[in-house]
Amino acid sequence: MEKILKPTVNVVHTLGSDTMRALVFKDVGKLVLEQRPIPKVKNPDDVLLKIRNVGICGSDVKIMEGKHHFKPDTVLGHEFVGEVIEIGSHVHYIKVGDRVSVDNNIRCGFCSFCRMGMSSQCVEIKFNALGVMRDGGYAEYCLVPEKQCFTLPDEIDDVLGSQVETLATVVNGMNTLQMNPYDYVMVIGFGPIGYLFAQFAKNIACKVAVTEIDPFRISVAKQCGLEVWNPREVDVVQKITDFTYGRKADIVVEATGNDLATALKCVTPGGKVLPFGMDSSITTSVVPNEITRWATKILGLYLGQNTMVPSIRIFQEKRLNMEPFFTKVISLEEGLQAFNDLGLDTETLQHKPKSAMKIVMKM
Amino acid sequence: MEKILKPTVNVVHTLGSDTMRALVFKDVGKLVLEQRPIPKVKNPDDVLLKIRNVGICGSDVKIMEGKHHFKPDTVLGHEFVGEVIEIGSHVHYIKVGDRVSVDNNIRCGFCSFCRMGMSSQCVEIKFNALGVMRDGGYAEYCLVPEKQCFTLPDEIDDVLGSQVETLATVVNGMNTLQMNPYDYVMVIGFGPIGYLFAQFAKNIACKVAVTEIDPFRISVAKQCGLEVWNPREVDVVQKITDFTYGRKADIVVEATGNDLATALKCVTPGGKVLPFGMDSSITTSVVPNEITRWATKILGLYLGQNTMVPSIRIFQEKRLNMEPFFTKVISLEEGLQAFNDLGLDTETLQHKPKSAMKIVMKM
Amino acid sequence: MEKILKPTVNVVHTLGSDTMRALVFKDVGKLVLEQRPIPKVKNPDDVLLKIRNVGICGSDVKIMEGKHHFKPDTVLGHEFVGEVIEIGSHVHYIKVGDRVSVDNNIRCGFCSFCRMGMSSQCVEIKFNALGVMRDGGYAEYCLVPEKQCFTLPDEIDDVLGSQVETLATVVNGMNTLQMNPYDYVMVIGFGPIGYLFAQFAKNIACKVAVTEIDPFRISVAKQCGLEVWNPREVDVVQKITDFTYGRKADIVVEATGNDLATALKCVTPGGKVLPFGMDSSITTSVVPNEITRWATKILGLYLGQNTMVPSIRIFQEKRLNMEPFFTKVISLEEGLQAFNDLGLDTETLQHKPKSAMKIVMKM
Amino acid sequence: MEKILKPTVNVVHTLGSDTMRALVFKDVGKLVLEQRPIPKVKNPDDVLLKIRNVGICGSDVKIMEGKHHFKPDTVLGHEFVGEVIEIGSHVHYIKVGDRVSVDNNIRCGFCSFCRMGMSSQCVEIKFNALGVMRDGGYAEYCLVPEKQCFTLPDEIDDVLGSQVETLATVVNGMNTLQMNPYDYVMVIGFGPIGYLFAQFAKNIACKVAVTEIDPFRISVAKQCGLEVWNPREVDVVQKITDFTYGRKADIVVEATGNDLATALKCVTPGGKVLPFGMDSSITTSVVPNEITRWATKILGLYLGQNTMVPSIRIFQEKRLNMEPFFTKVISLEEGLQAFNDLGLDTETLQHKPKSAMKIVMKM
Repeated sequence: MEKILKPTVNVVHTLGSDTMRALVFKDVGKLVLEQRPIPKVKNPDDVLLKIRNVGICGSDVKIMEGKHHFKPDTVLGHEFVGEVIEIGSHVHYIKVGDRVSVDNNIRCGFCSFCRMGMSSQCVEIKFNALGVMRDGGYAEYCLVPEKQCFTLPDEIDDVLGSQVETLATVVNGMNTLQMNPYDYVMVIGFGPIGYLFAQFAKNIACKVAVTEIDPFRISVAKQCGLEVWNPREVDVVQKITDFTYGRKADIVVEATGNDLATALKCVTPGGKVLPFGMDSSITTSVVPNEITRWATKILGLYLGQNTMVPSIRIFQEKRLNMEPFFTKVISLEEGLQAFNDLGLDTETLQHKPKSAMKIVMKM
Repeated sequence: MEKILKPTVNVVHTLGSDTMRALVFKDVGKLVLEQRPIPKVKNPDDVLLKIRNVGICGSDVKIMEGKHHFKPDTVLGHEFVGEVIEIGSHVHYIKVGDRVSVDNNIRCGFCSFCRMGMSSQCVEIKFNALGVMRDGGYAEYCLVPEKQCFTLPDEIDDVLGSQVETLATVVNGMNTLQMNPYDYVMVIGFGPIGYLFAQFAKNIACKVAVTEIDPFRISVAKQCGLEVWNPREVDVVQKITDFTYGRKADIVVEATGNDLATALKCVTPGGKVLPFGMDSSITTSVVPNEITRWATKILGLYLGQNTMVPSIRIFQEKRLNMEPFFTKVISLEEGLQAFNDLGLDTETLQHKPKSAMKIVMKM
Repeated sequence: MEKILKPTVNVVHTLGSDTMRALVFKDVGKLVLEQRPIPKVKNPDDVLLKIRNVGICGSDVKIMEGKHHFKPDTVLGHEFVGEVIEIGSHVHYIKVGDRVSVDNNIRCGFCSFCRMGMSSQCVEIKFNALGVMRDGGYAEYCLVPEKQCFTLPDEIDDVLGSQVETLATVVNGMNTLQMNPYDYVMVIGFGPIGYLFAQFAKNIACKVAVTEIDPFRISVAKQCGLEVWNPREVDVVQKITDFTYGRKADIVVEATGNDLATALKCVTPGGKVLPFGMDSSITTSVVPNEITRWATKILGLYLGQNTMVPSIRIFQEKRLNMEPFFTKVISLEEGLQAFNDLGLDTETLQHKPKSAMKIVMKM
Repeated sequence: MEKILKPTVNVVHTLGSDTMRALVFKDVGKLVLEQRPIPKVKNPDDVLLKIRNVGICGSDVKIMEGKHHFKPDTVLGHEFVGEVIEIGSHVHYIKVGDRVSVDNNIRCGFCSFCRMGMSSQCVEIKFNALGVMRDGGYAEYCLVPEKQCFTLPDEIDDVLGSQVETLATVVNGMNTLQMNPYDYVMVIGFGPIGYLFAQFAKNIACKVAVTEIDPFRISVAKQCGLEVWNPREVDVVQKITDFTYGRKADIVVEATGNDLATALKCVTPGGKVLPFGMDSSITTSVVPNEITRWATKILGLYLGQNTMVPSIRIFQEKRLNMEPFFTKVISLEEGLQAFNDLGLDTETLQHKPKSAMKIVMKM
C-alpha cells in the first residue's frame, strides 16, 4: 500500500540538503525558527512548492495570542506564492515549474455543503487549513494539494501574489454585497481586509468612508485618499449621517469583529451589513425588532469561494491601488519581529500601536 | 381653497344617516363602540369605502396593550375589504362599485426610499397607516386614497379578501427568502403570519416544521398536517437537527419577535433567518463571530411591497389552504370580545390562552 | 508507472465471469447487446459500480439518430443507480456497498469555469460524459470517478434513483428561474424534462399550463391534473393570455428545443424564458428590439450544477408526483425496443408517436 | 367640474408674454421653431417648469426619421432640467423655485406592472411620454406631473442635470447586469448610452473594450482612455478573445440595437448580454441551442426604474468622467442643425458621419 501511494516525482531542483528553515508555531506566544525536514510528496494529489513569499495575516497574530483555533508545532503561513518543484502521480493540471498562489482552505468536495456549492462551509475546512492545522508557508517548502494551486500570470509579482487568497475572501464578500455604483459605503476597521474593501468601494461605489483607531493605519487611509474617521475622536453615526446627506450607509463592512453594534447604527434602512471581521470573544446586544423595522440585511460570510481566479484577474489588471498596502518585505528570520509591527508585543502578548499594514516574508 | 378641494362625488348609496358605527381605540386598553360621522371625500385622490369585512390583526392586540405605536381616538382595523361608494375628483382608475382590498400603509412616493423602490421604508409610513394613525376599517365606512385600493376578482370572497394585506407582508418575506424546492424550513410561532409562511413552505419547500406554545394554535397546525413542536416541551434545536438529517434548517422564519436566538441555533451554515415577528421589548445577545463563521444571512424585512397584486393572484387560485385560518366571523359589536379570544384579557390586559387564529368582523 | 496506478481494490462480489452484458452504441442507428469485459479499477479515484437501474434519456435517442455528439462503440446510459463493489486506492468518501446515483458529467475542477463556480461550463465536460463519450450505465458494470457518486437514502428506490441526475438538471433550471408563488408558468413540451418542471410549478407557482403534441404524453399530462394544450389544435398564445387573465406567463420553460419563438410570444413583459430543450438543427428569428422593449429575460442554462444533493432531498421527501412519470421498467435485452416506444423507429430512424414517458432498464 | 380641477397656482415669475419659443416636431423630417402658448397648470398634480437645459437624444433623431413611435405636432425633448414656477393645488412635495430633473416616462401606478414593481412596463407608458407623446422640453416652458420631478443638488449643474434621465436608464441596466469587479466587459456602440456603460465599466469592471464605427465617436472613446475597436476594420470576436486571454466577455452591452449576433459571439459561456439599443427594423437569427449550451443570459431591459435618485447621487459625486460626453451647448434656435451633427442630414433624412456625442440646448 505504502509503495502504491508513493508517487513518481519529477525533481527539477536539486535540494541542497534534506532540511529547510521554517517558522514554527510551537504554542501560544511561541514562534520559533527551526530546521525541519523538507516534506516529501506522498499523496498522489499533492505538489511540493518552493515558497517564494508569504504574507503575515491578522489571524496569524490571533493564533499567537491564542484567540484563533490552532494546532501546536505547526508551520504557520497561509498567504503564499511558490514554485512547483515536484508533483504527485495523480497530478494532471499543475506542472513542475508553475508559479502558483495557494488557497489554503482545503474543501472535502463530498459533504453536503461542498456539493451544494457552499464549499466555504465544508465540514472539514477547519481541520485541514494549510498554515493553521497543517504546515503552511512560513518555510522554504510546503506540500499543497494540486487543487489548491492557482497559476499566476507574469503581471502579478511574488509579493502581490501572496495576497491572492486574502483578496479572494474580500471578493467573496463583494459577491455577497453586490455593491452598486450609487451606494454609500462605510468600512469599519482599516486593516488589510478593510483596506481591500475600501479600495473596491473607491472604484465602484458612490462614496466611501472608513473608520480606524490605529494612528499608523489612519495615515495609510489618508495616503489612499480616503475619508477616515477615528471613532475615539468623533461620533461616527453622526459622521456617516452627514456624509450621506442624512441617508446613512447602504453598505457597512464590519472588518474588526467587534463593532456590529455601530454597523447597525450606521446602515440605512434596507441596507446591508457584512460582519466580516472575526473575534470570538465578542458578544453584542441587538434588538431584533430594529432589524425587522429597518429591514436590515446582516450577511454573514466566511472565507473565499470560487474567488481565487477572480482575484487573480483583478490583480493582473492592477485594478486596486496596492502601493500603500505593503508596508515591507522582510526575511523569514525577521518574522517574529513583524508580529510586533502588527501590534502584538511578542514578549508580553499585549497589544500595542501598529506600524504596519501588511508584511510579507521573502524566502 | 377649501372649495377647490371639495370633490365632485358620485353618490350611489343613499346613506340612511350621517353617522356610522365604529370600534374606536380611545387609549391603551380601551376600545369603544361609538357612533361617528360618516367621513366625506375631501381629498381629490380619496375614495369612500363601505366596509364589508375587517380582520383583527395581532398588531391591533398590541395597540390595545400599548406595545405598538398608536394614536388615541382612532378607528382601528387595517385588514379590510369594502365597496367603493364615492370617489374624489382626481380618481381615475378605481370606480364606484368596485370591491377592493386595501393596503393600509400609505407611502409618500417622494422620499428617497420610495423613489429607489423600497417603499416599505418610506419616511412617512408610520404617520399615515390606516387603522393605526388614521381611521381604519373597524367601522361601516372608511376614507382611503385611491392608490391603496386593489380590486378583487370574484373568486376571492369578503372574508378571504380581508387578508390580502396580511398575505402581502408574507409574500414580501417570500420574495426576500427565495425559498427553494429543496429547502428545509422552520417557522417559529404559528400565529396568522407563521400560518401563512408554513402554508407556502408546505407547497414549495422540501420539509417544514413549526413551533408554537399555544395549545389552540398547536391544534390548528396539526389540522393543517404540519409537523409542530412545543418549545416548552421539546428541544427544538435537537428536533430540527433530527428532522433535517443533521443539517438544520435552510430557512428559519422567526414569526414571534422574541426568539431570534433560537432561530440562529436552528439555521444551517449559510442559511437564512427572517426576523419577521416584531416585539420592541426584546433584546437578544448575539455573537457576531458566529454569524460570520456560519455565514448566516439575517434578512430583516418590514411590511409588504409590490405584493398586493401577487397576493390577490395567490388567493384567486386558492393556492393556500385557508380553511383552518379563519376561526370565526363575528359582528362589529363582538369585536372587543375577540381580543380575548386572541389572548388578551381585555379587563386586566394580561395574556391568556388563545382560542382563535384569525377573527374577521362582518359589517 | 503502470503499477503505481493499479489500485488496491476491495472485492466484495465474486464476479461469476470476466464479461458482462452491455448495450453498446456502435454507430448512428446501431445499438447492439454485447458481451464486454468487466471494467477494472485502474484510476485511484474510480469506483466500480454494479448497475441496478438505468434510465433511457431523450438524448440517448438523439445519439441514435446522430443528432447529438457521440462516440461510436460506447456503452450508452447516463441515468443510473448502482452498488459500489470496488474502490480505487485514493477513494476516501464512497465505500464498498454504498448504493449511489451518478452525475455523469465529469468536471475537471481546474478550468476557469470550474474554479469560478460554473462547472456546468467546464471546458472538458463534453469529452468526459459517462454514457456519451465514455462507457455508461447500459451494462452490468461501470467505472465511475468517486466524486460523481451520490449515496442514496433508503426512501429512494432504484427506479427513482435513476432519475436523480435528470432532476438535477431541472433543479438547476429552477435555481435560475427563482419561481415565485404568484407566477403564472407555461411549459412547452411535456417530455420527462417538461414533466419535472410542470410538477415543480404545480407545487410552487400560481398556475401552470403545458403544451404537447404527442397524444400519449398529452394523456400523461391529463393524468397529472395539468392544463394541457396541443399547439396543433389551439392557439397557445391566445390560450396563455386567457389563462392568465390577459397578463401572459411570468415564466416560460421551453423544453423541446424548437420553439423559442412561441416562448417569446407567451411570456409577459419582464418575464423569464428558459430555453432548456436542445436541438442544434433549429435556427430562430428574433427581433432584439422586442426583447428590449418587453424586458424579456432569456436565461440559457445547461446541465445540473450543485444540484444532485438537492435532487436527492426532493425525491427522499416524495415532493413530486412521480407515479405517471415511469411508463415501464424493462430488461437490458428489451432496451432497443424502448427506443421505439420513445418515438424513434429503430428500423427507419424516422419519428413515430410515442408510447412512453420514461423507461428504465433493470439489470 | 372644470372649476374644481383649476388649481390655485403660486406664480413667482411674471411671464413677459403668453407665448414661448418651442421646437416642434410637425411630422417625419419636420422640426420647426414656433411660438406656442405657454401651458397652464390645470391638473392639480402638475407643475410648470421654466426649462433651463434640454439634451438631444438619439431617439429624438429616430423620431425625426420616423423610426420611433411619434405624435405629430409635439414639442420634443425628454432630457431636461427646469425651475418650478407654478404648482397645482395638489402638489405637496415639489416647491416653487425647485430646480428639477425630469423623468419623462409617466407610469400609471395602477396597472399590474406598476403595482408589482415593474413600472418600466407600465401599460400606459408609451402613451404619456413627455417629449414624445405629449409636449416636452424643447421649449421655454413645460408642464410636468409632480411625481416626475427630481430636485437637484447644487453640485449638478444644468447641463449635467439634463442627463439624469439618460443615466437612469443606464443605471437600470447596471442593476440588471450586477457587474462584478472581476468582469471583462464589452460595449457595442459608443453613443451616449455606450459611453455611460463604458464609464461604469471603467470604474467597476476588470477590463473594458468598446466598439464603434463612427470616427468622431471613436476619437471620443480614445479621449476617454478606452480600448476601442472598429468592427469594419478588425474582427471583434478575435479581439475580445485575445483581450480576455481566451475567455471572452462576461458582460456584453449591445448599445446599437443592430448587433445582437455579435454580442452572442463575444460573450463567455455563462455570461450576460444586455440588448439595450433599440432598432425595430432589425431581425436576427439565433440558434437557441447555443444559448442553452453556453448558458447565455440575454437580459432585456427597458427605460429606467427607481433609478433617478441613484443617478443624481452618482452625478453629485462626479463618479463618471463626463467631460468628453458633452460636445457642445447650443441655443434652441440651433437645435435643427444639431440633428445634422448627430448624423442625420435633415435635408435628405440620410445618415452621415457624426460630429457630436451629446448636444444640449440652453434656453
